[in-house]
Amino acid sequence: MEKILSLGIDFGSNAVRALFLNVRDGKTIASASCTYQRGNKGVFSENHHMARQHPQDYLDSMTVAITEAISKLKDQGYSAKDVQGIGVDATGSTPIPVKSDLTPLANLEAFSNNLNAYAWMWKDHTSASEADEITTKAQELRPQYLTKCGGAYSSEWFWAKLLHCARTDKSVFDEADSWLEFSDFVPAVLAGIKEVSQVKRNKCAAGHKAFYHSSWNGFPDKEFLSALDKDLVKIADTMGQQAYSIDEQAGLLSEDWATRLGLSAGIPVAVGALDAHIGALGSGVGEGTLVKIIGTSSCDIMVSPMDKNVPDIPGVAGIAEESVVPNNLGIEAGQSAVGDILNWFVSELLCKDGSAHVELTEKASALAVGQTGLLALDWNNGNRNVLTDPNLSGLLIGQSLFTKDFEIYRALIEATAFGARRIIEQMEQYGVEIEKVINCGGISQKNALFMQIYADVINKPMLIADNEEAVALGAAIFAAKGALESNGESYSLEALQEKACTVKEKIFTPIAENVDTYNKLYELYKQLHDSFGVKDQKQDLYGIMKTLIELKNSSKS
Amino acid sequence: MEKILSLGIDFGSNAVRALFLNVRDGKTIASASCTYQRGNKGVFSENHHMARQHPQDYLDSMTVAITEAISKLKDQGYSAKDVQGIGVDATGSTPIPVKSDLTPLANLEAFSNNLNAYAWMWKDHTSASEADEITTKAQELRPQYLTKCGGAYSSEWFWAKLLHCARTDKSVFDEADSWLEFSDFVPAVLAGIKEVSQVKRNKCAAGHKAFYHSSWNGFPDKEFLSALDKDLVKIADTMGQQAYSIDEQAGLLSEDWATRLGLSAGIPVAVGALDAHIGALGSGVGEGTLVKIIGTSSCDIMVSPMDKNVPDIPGVAGIAEESVVPNNLGIEAGQSAVGDILNWFVSELLCKDGSAHVELTEKASALAVGQTGLLALDWNNGNRNVLTDPNLSGLLIGQSLFTKDFEIYRALIEATAFGARRIIEQMEQYGVEIEKVINCGGISQKNALFMQIYADVINKPMLIADNEEAVALGAAIFAAKGALESNGESYSLEALQEKACTVKEKIFTPIAENVDTYNKLYELYKQLHDSFGVKDQKQDLYGIMKTLIELKNSSKS
Repeated sequence: MEKILSLGIDFGSNAVRALFLNVRDGKTIASASCTYQRGNKGVFSENHHMARQHPQDYLDSMTVAITEAISKLKDQGYSAKDVQGIGVDATGSTPIPVKSDLTPLANLEAFSNNLNAYAWMWKDHTSASEADEITTKAQELRPQYLTKCGGAYSSEWFWAKLLHCARTDKSVFDEADSWLEFSDFVPAVLAGIKEVSQVKRNKCAAGHKAFYHSSWNGFPDKEFLSALDKDLVKIADTMGQQAYSIDEQAGLLSEDWATRLGLSAGIPVAVGALDAHIGALGSGVGEGTLVKIIGTSSCDIMVSPMDKNVPDIPGVAGIAEESVVPNNLGIEAGQSAVGDILNWFVSELLCKDGSAHVELTEKASALAVGQTGLLALDWNNGNRNVLTDPNLSGLLIGQSLFTKDFEIYRALIEATAFGARRIIEQMEQYGVEIEKVINCGGISQKNALFMQIYADVINKPMLIADNEEAVALGAAIFAAKGALESNGESYSLEALQEKACTVKEKIFTPIAENVDTYNKLYELYKQLHDSFGVKDQKQDLYGIMKTLIELKNSSKS
Repeated sequence: MEKILSLGIDFGSNAVRALFLNVRDGKTIASASCTYQRGNKGVFSENHHMARQHPQDYLDSMTVAITEAISKLKDQGYSAKDVQGIGVDATGSTPIPVKSDLTPLANLEAFSNNLNAYAWMWKDHTSASEADEITTKAQELRPQYLTKCGGAYSSEWFWAKLLHCARTDKSVFDEADSWLEFSDFVPAVLAGIKEVSQVKRNKCAAGHKAFYHSSWNGFPDKEFLSALDKDLVKIADTMGQQAYSIDEQAGLLSEDWATRLGLSAGIPVAVGALDAHIGALGSGVGEGTLVKIIGTSSCDIMVSPMDKNVPDIPGVAGIAEESVVPNNLGIEAGQSAVGDILNWFVSELLCKDGSAHVELTEKASALAVGQTGLLALDWNNGNRNVLTDPNLSGLLIGQSLFTKDFEIYRALIEATAFGARRIIEQMEQYGVEIEKVINCGGISQKNALFMQIYADVINKPMLIADNEEAVALGAAIFAAKGALESNGESYSLEALQEKACTVKEKIFTPIAENVDTYNKLYELYKQLHDSFGVKDQKQDLYGIMKTLIELKNSSKS
């Protein structure tokens, strides 16, 4: 049988990874990554809210990573000619202003130093007031738009960023013929598309970040966009009304890019998708399986067959059609800071380097549940779900004169676990059945205390994805469709996932005694959560400090 | 005119200070101090709650300090013979179990290693459950007792400690013929008293810590004590019903102690008092002047002429007759942790040494009011006033992913200032007029940011006591009465205070703009204070994080 490889290209926040997958046995053959070279680890920023990237960085680093990965193929008995399909995922919503021929504005000399002409990275929060404006306008004119995105539009999303640019930098906005999601830009460039209206925009970014849904015939209508700013209509005109899932082709690899990358021209390039969703796919997401991608923030991805008609879930960030697995709804939620809260504590507060995480974790592991006497909210970066409110903050309660750094560290991990549980409860309450949780991302691989706390707080076994390159793997998995079908072979996503997406032998199982105590702490967490995060709540909080002190005292005996 | 000096002996938590005062011009002639030598800076402890000291440590260190201070007299043109009166203050409630001849149990070989036979230091919290028991029993049988102590008996106080000993170490309790307050023990020992029933117990410790009040004929009646534990009656039998103020004599200096100290036998030794109250006296307390002693904890002392009939003040720790200034009510309140909260943050959390306070203060000083976005409660060691509840804890709200150590440091200082304001408002609400605030203690001398925040939060000018030895000075001031009167001269407390108790030229004045912002923050503080500290309160806290974020954002513009 002919050797067939697929290539997954995963664009993360600071680096790109290329991975070659044997599409028949699900084995990874080779991979390589390359950090973005411009800015600070690829990021340009003038203030805490701003995060921009240069689109050329993406293409340059991609070329390096693919070239390096190809160089490893020979030793494994493969060559670049065996590569028969390409899949791409990228961060998002990361809109890039482009000319009609797809040239990024950042590549024009006149805009080379204007950060508004760069890619507006997912974590750019400059558009907070425009996000509020969109939410308000949608409540008024198109309430249905909000039912798919947890009830509020985010400053991280497509239309908020465009609106902010239209309001604050007319020179950029007027020069741009369109804006492309990062995850649409790369596949289109690889396919040699030179006219922006021919770009197939992906359902994942469109559905989760740009108000795309079939029930209102695709992207937002022009009347609504005009009501926000009539300049937005010009962009909408370039976007069409149809978005596409990953089982469709963005195009075929162009001669130009085939030459640059050392691959065969004409191989299929799949429609792209967002990195988190593809990470879930590469970790084994499927009906009944929640994938939690735990990094600086967290992303929780579920799918549900479209014929099951899962209702809208209030406070859950996104429900989009075919955004992860074709013929399934993709359900996305998440926490705006997880690892970032621990990094904040270590770097900004304790002023220590990253190695302190190991020591703090070790000491925190020796504590019994409840022994810290502490309870925290995980809102240092706001609350993405289920409150969808960036204007919240951290909270720590229970400090004595003897509270130690590692006790707070543990309380912060627990806070993120409580936040994770709150999201899962919301999904379950609305009929999404969650049988198992597969975790991926650095923390899940490295921190056993973290995963045990999650098992105990959430009271479900925590599985860990085996492959540390789950996102690139996911891209290669859906790239396999084009690779196989163009060779006349059949493709099954589930079958390939079964082979490729293994989990580690070590499964973190809930410990009954810990579950009991965490149930008590979670009740207190919910009291704080609702008191500080929900309007018109009046709770009696007098018992919180008392209960924490009791739990602390009883944990020692 | 004959030279006349008085000797003030001030027993603090870790050291004793001796100070010689020229009783005519109020000038300090010489002083010296000596740290306690046993245990850890004088303190023995088997757990966080326990703090015990060896009574012999007190006498040994006193001898060293006085001897050293005497050695400095000659250079100033004085000699030990000029010393004509002695005053003593000490921490408290610090009860010491003694034999009937005043021998401390700790000096008996059989008890030399039993910490229950030592002095039970003021900050010993082992008797928390007994304090609750006393409060409950008093609510039931003698509600009037609680009106003078803020509504709840404290684990730091006399009867709680005795009851805990009676319950947990019968060997010590049965061996003790009586228990003496530290501030009664030393004057009685100096006066050579050998029979415990002849010791004049001081009104300051008795009134503030042992339920002593003239309206119920002195100490608690035996029926009440029996209801707690009938063994307490044995102790009460040795205490008499009359307590004494500092303008009375405990006795005359014994031959024995005169020889040991190199002083003249037969000079008057005044009745003692608690250190905080004497610190207030030495800082210039008087009608309309609040003295705040700011150290690891804080103590707020006011006086009010007894004929003014100030009512009981709910939640204020103590109102006692003649406990500070004769013929005045002494009003005492305080916060269970002030400097201790900052020390906790620096030592336990940041794991830095004391020098970090300087750097953190410097950086915190550069911040505008509200700029941290943070708000804290000052309850890491519970709340002494106005909630009188040790079962509370710290709280910090407003953390982002960019919050720095020095921002939290500032928020913690502000928390203690809000706590201080809450106490002052309580006093004022019940008719105590406060015209000026004189601050003493290390922090007030060293930390200008701290004092400016206090001025801005409390909206009153903050004066700083000039004399860093204000407590020993206070003891020398009341010792002057005996010294002058035994020489046939007249004595006026106010006149001597006028000369001796000067304040620094630098006065911290409220800055209007800061006062405005702090008024807003104080409203939020009160919401948290009442929500977490008061039963059956239901407040809408949704606005707290929002307001903090608004204040933070507007502070920068």
